[in-house]
Amino acid sequence: MPQMSSLTYEQSGVDYGPLDAFKRACQRQAAATASALASHNITEPAGTRGESAYLIETPDAFWAHVEEGLGTKNLVADAMAKLTGQTHYHSIGIDTVATIVNDLITCGALPISVAMHAAVGDSNWFADTARADELARGFADGCRQANAVWGGGETPALKGMVTPDSIILAGSAFGRIAPKSHRITGDIRDGDQIILLASSGVQTNGLTLCRALAERLPQGYLTPISDGRTYGQALLDPSAIYVNFIAACQKANLRLHYAAHLTGHGWRKLMRLNEPFVYRMTHLGHPQPIFDTIRQAAQMDLREAYATFNMGAGFAVWVSAADAQTALQLATQSGHTAWIGGTTHKQSTRKAVELVPLDIAYESDTLQVR
Amino acid sequence: MPQMSSLTYEQSGVDYGPLDAFKRACQRQAAATASALASHNITEPAGTRGESAYLIETPDAFWAHVEEGLGTKNLVADAMAKLTGQTHYHSIGIDTVATIVNDLITCGALPISVAMHAAVGDSNWFADTARADELARGFADGCRQANAVWGGGETPALKGMVTPDSIILAGSAFGRIAPKSHRITGDIRDGDQIILLASSGVQTNGLTLCRALAERLPQGYLTPISDGRTYGQALLDPSAIYVNFIAACQKANLRLHYAAHLTGHGWRKLMRLNEPFVYRMTHLGHPQPIFDTIRQAAQMDLREAYATFNMGAGFAVWVSAADAQTALQLATQSGHTAWIGGTTHKQSTRKAVELVPLDIAYESDTLQVR
Repeated sequence: MPQMSSLTYEQSGVDYGPLDAFKRACQRQAAATASALASHNITEPAGTRGESAYLIETPDAFWAHVEEGLGTKNLVADAMAKLTGQTHYHSIGIDTVATIVNDLITCGALPISVAMHAAVGDSNWFADTARADELARGFADGCRQANAVWGGGETPALKGMVTPDSIILAGSAFGRIAPKSHRITGDIRDGDQIILLASSGVQTNGLTLCRALAERLPQGYLTPISDGRTYGQALLDPSAIYVNFIAACQKANLRLHYAAHLTGHGWRKLMRLNEPFVYRMTHLGHPQPIFDTIRQAAQMDLREAYATFNMGAGFAVWVSAADAQTALQLATQSGHTAWIGGTTHKQSTRKAVELVPLDIAYESDTLQVR
Repeated sequence: MPQMSSLTYEQSGVDYGPLDAFKRACQRQAAATASALASHNITEPAGTRGESAYLIETPDAFWAHVEEGLGTKNLVADAMAKLTGQTHYHSIGIDTVATIVNDLITCGALPISVAMHAAVGDSNWFADTARADELARGFADGCRQANAVWGGGETPALKGMVTPDSIILAGSAFGRIAPKSHRITGDIRDGDQIILLASSGVQTNGLTLCRALAERLPQGYLTPISDGRTYGQALLDPSAIYVNFIAACQKANLRLHYAAHLTGHGWRKLMRLNEPFVYRMTHLGHPQPIFDTIRQAAQMDLREAYATFNMGAGFAVWVSAADAQTALQLATQSGHTAWIGGTTHKQSTRKAVELVPLDIAYESDTLQVR
């Protein structure tokens, strides 16, 4: 591949085809196990399979369960440590919690317990106790930001399965929706406003491509970007955690019709809901400088960029037009930058995300998984 | 190392030292996050940190959370597939669920939702759709055996972190104890009987060593063992799942004082409880033929073997002497082989596991983690 040819996410090493087929097989098999709930006197709300969190219902509450992984972001931390001698595993710990709890809250659940899964290829990974301690502190700080307890975990050494210098970070959370009226059910309506909450940068999404791009940049991870920092530093900004915003909305009894965590598949994730709507995004916000660097290095057009990265918006909620200003205030009070990104329209059976300022539209066939 | 020298678990590639130090750092950091519970109107029962499942308390129930990994067992399935053309991933799917739920039930929680984490180095792992489908079916069947729902999961492709042909299997569960009186609190008493439930073989523990031993055996994984099968086949027997036994005890209102899932550290795990007791094991049961093969190939004495493997006993519960026969009946009715393995004794501050027929004792200093 010539040095400056364009590089898409799939070319960078992840072929979603076989993965998505396995996900669908799992979803079929998983759906067939639901009969177990009856003997627990528990039910599964209709239509929630395929959402970001698994949900069950008891008389007083809903309970949510999520399993999620960090992906490859810590390989950037490893590369930066070699170049600068500094460990960024405190940020990595926060990122790991963020990727889990930001999925969990999309149904309206607040996380209660978060668990860490940290698999290494060689137990000597932990012999660097400064790095190991930062990871532990970061995970704990992420839990604090999520107002959740760190409730355990697992740290296997998997020689021959994990590459010798790597650590694979993942984990799970369970949480609760109480009272039950706080559940985010996906009842999006024609005219709903789409509130976008700023990301901190790439967060935990698209890192396989970002790492490939480091090889194209003149000084690799140490290449300066327009905010004066290096590419590697900017990539490693810890993810925003949106739990306190959801909690604030619940406290204010502000009804959220839907919520989406913008990760894999970028802004296409705005059309996660099964019911067809057209999401007309009129205000795209301000992508961080890192996204300019990525786009230039990858020779990536904006259509591909918004289909891959969060481009400055990490989380979206849908509210009625009457609630939009209150939602913005609550986001600001919770420490988040937020704006009204667009409006929801019913256009018969059409399902699409339109980026109006860019004259881009993603139709539903561009998003095969939810 | 000469061909027939002895091989211990630590020599086979897992050094627990740095791992255990990291676990302790995590436990310290995790304990410091507990204050988040207050705003959820939830409490954390005293003294449960460090047990196999994380536990929280609501007015009507306890809720438990576990994150666990399969370890390296599926490398045996991969090696056997190359030798025989057969995929054993249905068993591997069951094993993955087993390792999660058998931890969860030690507090008396019955699993409600189980999630899969399946990380690959190359998404083409899933292009072998027969193998991928078996994994999905096995995980679903494991959930059925655990009377739990498969509630989602995550399947990342982690190029450069997971070795190209590997899949790393793990997951999480949350469950409930209701009514609250079914909680297994660890109130072991002098004279309590220790009921052992049979394992199916090595289950998911000690596989790093078992794989190393395949290289010592004359025909590797295809070496016949005394039950007429091959070493590889016997290793791949799917783990027993003990959920239905715990559920049966609860239904019969039989009080379990403690429960332990016998995995890493073998029978030393019988002294998990903080309070000191001496566990005098008089009936060791009948280890499967696979353990003879392992011991011979590793030149491993019985002291090391029982400190490493389950040696035929995968789960232990403590009951009063008056309840022992009922517990055995319930185990049998649940499809498990079970026996009274020994008796609990208070000997001042001594904490130890004694294997009476073998004249072996493990003192508390031989188990550094819980």
